[in-house]
Amino acid sequence: MTRTQTLLACLASIFCLMATASAQALPSWNDTPTKAAIMSFVEKVTQDGSPDFVMPADRVAVFDNDGTLWSEQPMYTQLAFIIDRVKAMAPDHPEWKAKEPFKSLLAGDAKGVAASGQKGLLELVAATHAGMTTEAFEATVTDWLKTARHPKFNRPYLECVYQPQIELLQYLRDHGFKTFIVSGGGIDFMRPWTHEVYGIPPDQVVGSSIKAKYEVRDGEPVIVKLPEIDFIDDKAGKPVGIHKFIGKRPILAFGNSDGDFEMLEYVTTGSGARLGLILHHDDAEREAAYDRESHVGKLTRGLDEAQARGWVLVSMKSDWAIVFPRK
Amino acid sequence: MTRTQTLLACLASIFCLMATASAQALPSWNDTPTKAAIMSFVEKVTQDGSPDFVMPADRVAVFDNDGTLWSEQPMYTQLAFIIDRVKAMAPDHPEWKAKEPFKSLLAGDAKGVAASGQKGLLELVAATHAGMTTEAFEATVTDWLKTARHPKFNRPYLECVYQPQIELLQYLRDHGFKTFIVSGGGIDFMRPWTHEVYGIPPDQVVGSSIKAKYEVRDGEPVIVKLPEIDFIDDKAGKPVGIHKFIGKRPILAFGNSDGDFEMLEYVTTGSGARLGLILHHDDAEREAAYDRESHVGKLTRGLDEAQARGWVLVSMKSDWAIVFPRK
Repeated sequence: MTRTQTLLACLASIFCLMATASAQALPSWNDTPTKAAIMSFVEKVTQDGSPDFVMPADRVAVFDNDGTLWSEQPMYTQLAFIIDRVKAMAPDHPEWKAKEPFKSLLAGDAKGVAASGQKGLLELVAATHAGMTTEAFEATVTDWLKTARHPKFNRPYLECVYQPQIELLQYLRDHGFKTFIVSGGGIDFMRPWTHEVYGIPPDQVVGSSIKAKYEVRDGEPVIVKLPEIDFIDDKAGKPVGIHKFIGKRPILAFGNSDGDFEMLEYVTTGSGARLGLILHHDDAEREAAYDRESHVGKLTRGLDEAQARGWVLVSMKSDWAIVFPRK
Repeated sequence: MTRTQTLLACLASIFCLMATASAQALPSWNDTPTKAAIMSFVEKVTQDGSPDFVMPADRVAVFDNDGTLWSEQPMYTQLAFIIDRVKAMAPDHPEWKAKEPFKSLLAGDAKGVAASGQKGLLELVAATHAGMTTEAFEATVTDWLKTARHPKFNRPYLECVYQPQIELLQYLRDHGFKTFIVSGGGIDFMRPWTHEVYGIPPDQVVGSSIKAKYEVRDGEPVIVKLPEIDFIDDKAGKPVGIHKFIGKRPILAFGNSDGDFEMLEYVTTGSGARLGLILHHDDAEREAAYDRESHVGKLTRGLDEAQARGWVLVSMKSDWAIVFPRK
């Protein structure tokens, strides 16, 4: 071949690869209007010369975690962790047998735990999260995730993540987006594994937190977790968390419950092209079906206002070819 | 040429370019043991097969801002901003004529302002930072920086940044590091310009903050700054800020005052290769000379303990060929 021929052959291969990549994008998403809307949005904000072009530095996408990136039914995974921790720690705390909400929790009495309200939940968080160093807490989370299994799907929790979302996060990053988690869940509960599972490094995880202090313990500098709320990253706290940790208004937000409403509102109201997405859990067979009446991940305002606000309602049942990663 | 010859010529060019790049690294740093220590550290944590090799995801470097990346004498730039803001806002606040610390500040009485202590400083911050939306505050900072000039160097504050540090930040990023600011200064005061000036995007800036709340004002979702301290990112607060915002222990820290002591201690005590650096302001001619006796950027413990802790003391006078960017 002449050099020109070689060059042309090279270019042809590259275009062919690009075309294949495009056809193969988001393979676990069905070819529905939802997938088309996502790809059309990404195309218009990333194509040179597009009137909606957005500079790479401003391509920020935020995702809720519980119910958006992984299952949140029948209970938040972090709550399952707390229950297991209380049970594991109970032998060292005989006083819990007579103290709520520990007493109800150890007796398997969910109503009794619920009756203790937010105060009770904070006591459970304090007992299982506070007092230890951040490194010890990370090790505890990592160890628990190695053995705990989802009660319905009978697989490790880290395999109860949504395959289509993992592909979407990668697709966005391939188009110059920086992807963040903005979750009501505990920031230190997510950070040990989000990089491996979602490709999102710890500094791109925003979540709820308890306070911490620095100290030198036996010559070893450590951060110790304290039994006091620092920040609740839920509802109107989500835009505040976005400002605090990210420092600029994202252009894409993906949530699933009314806890994400203000985040979607904040993200989709600025100037320029914006995309808001809500995952609707309408798939009792493969995962779960819930919205208005659910105690976890309740979705009412999102359903009522999505259309008027131009948010895309993603149907798990219709838009996703598979839900969880194949084993 | 045959194909093999072409390939060899290509490879030779690439190696030649790489060698040139290395010789040209950190051009504003003199060829001293300090520069050699920095380059040797970066080499050993990034070279494949090195016993000290660090995975790219763990190459996190943190830099203080005031006195480390830009000048902090004769006063923190943010304080100059506050003074100018109080003066600009004074006509709308006739009550300030009789109220400390505003009265002293407007009279140019630094001692009087200082006498009002931390409570007075918080009142100044509240008056000039709180009540407005984050977007309005950003615009105010950006506008001020366009016209304000450093009293000694007679150049815009954004040109009072240190050229050798800008090169070092880029050099680290070229070697796969993620670079962060961890400053006692206000996070919202830095974020509008750090990307342009240092190449550090807003989400990689950690700083002190006041609280904020989300609200919808006339149909427009905004974040409003509140007159209440949220987080002080100084001294023992710096390791806490690192954990909160970055979520993993960095391997390189660069500071200049005792406000950075705990950050350096935290960063340089973990396992594996670590580098701590302290900028010593010993250059009265080109910038400023101060350490133990200074009211701003006081450096005592760092000087006393640097050697024993293996921290590198960087001499502005000897190690830097130039201080500020050339005009």
